[in-house]
Amino acid sequence: MSTIPQTATTAAPTQLGIGARFSIHPHCDDFVRVILDALDDVSQAGLTAGLVLETDEVSTYVGAAEAPAEQRLARYLAGVVAAASRRSDGGHVVAHVLLSRGCPGERTCDLSVTGLPVADPVDVPLTGVAAVAQWSLYPLLDGSSDDGDHMVPIEAAIAAAQRRGTATGPAHYATRLAGDVAEVLATAVDAWAQVGASIPHVVSHLTLSVGSPSVGQSR
Amino acid sequence: MSTIPQTATTAAPTQLGIGARFSIHPHCDDFVRVILDALDDVSQAGLTAGLVLETDEVSTYVGAAEAPAEQRLARYLAGVVAAASRRSDGGHVVAHVLLSRGCPGERTCDLSVTGLPVADPVDVPLTGVAAVAQWSLYPLLDGSSDDGDHMVPIEAAIAAAQRRGTATGPAHYATRLAGDVAEVLATAVDAWAQVGASIPHVVSHLTLSVGSPSVGQSR
Repeated sequence: MSTIPQTATTAAPTQLGIGARFSIHPHCDDFVRVILDALDDVSQAGLTAGLVLETDEVSTYVGAAEAPAEQRLARYLAGVVAAASRRSDGGHVVAHVLLSRGCPGERTCDLSVTGLPVADPVDVPLTGVAAVAQWSLYPLLDGSSDDGDHMVPIEAAIAAAQRRGTATGPAHYATRLAGDVAEVLATAVDAWAQVGASIPHVVSHLTLSVGSPSVGQSR
Repeated sequence: MSTIPQTATTAAPTQLGIGARFSIHPHCDDFVRVILDALDDVSQAGLTAGLVLETDEVSTYVGAAEAPAEQRLARYLAGVVAAASRRSDGGHVVAHVLLSRGCPGERTCDLSVTGLPVADPVDVPLTGVAAVAQWSLYPLLDGSSDDGDHMVPIEAAIAAAQRRGTATGPAHYATRLAGDVAEVLATAVDAWAQVGASIPHVVSHLTLSVGSPSVGQSR
């Protein structure tokens, strides 16, 4: 048994705590109906398979219990945002998404994780719903690599998003993304997973806006 | 001139890029009026003094141009959330706040900052509006201290929030806070500033919810 090389053992999604928190905000009087209908839509579409969902008074935790973890998360999140847009007849809907990996407990990081998984790029069907977003990526456990210089993987991720065409420019503390909801989420999820192949604890935050009345206005 | 010790020079708010991004989400049909009225209220109340504001299609950047940077930010943010709650007659309003320091440009960190400021705890008048929140704190530039163990300052900040009485418990990837909007924001801002006295680049995210119909329901 000791002949099996350690690097052949890849950490499981639950072992790494791969998951998300999200909240979704329809800007309309009947927001409760829109949210419940949207959650029902994605459940009916089978997008909750392999995920653990827990809703509290602020947001919903989405844990990936089965591989492919990143693709399940990206498809579910894109599905919820697109469904909420449809259920509010194209009204203004904002979602806030926190992606996390490498910190499975509430307050403790497992620093001993080895065999970080290399995830394939996610495949998320286009939704037909256009989004603008602001995106931040935080490699947290980088003390032992690159002398703690967390900007190297961030800059590589932004360059990948620019090649993909979703990154439209920088903003203070964030990068602007635009495109189909599926493409915007895939950009953030792929970057987060890619950095996670070399750094155990990586968090990303994404604020997605669809149907905003202020898009295209000069402010 | 060379007799002046270097530690006497404290980095200015603009030099450190001390600021925030926020978005505010009234869950009602007339959300545009609520937002514009709330922004007007805080401007009339003088809470924009010493701040630089830039609104785009996703969120609003709030840069601190003058000291006390943290107190100006906390008072402004608490004022906006409370005003939006009042302007929507106590309806459901969610705000998402990103606090950042130590990364003044869009993509570059100034690693050479010395003389990190030690901020006094912020003094934010109570708003009378109760909030629940989920809060995350990310010390990013910690490679040179504590061997990159970013959990040490996070755990100290959570302990301080527990002593204050606003931290009500852990959640996946976040800590739950509850209390007056002013107290919840002061908890997050004080923790972020306190960690910033020893680590140059610190980011914090906070999702605040007021008037939620799901608070107190068993889910």
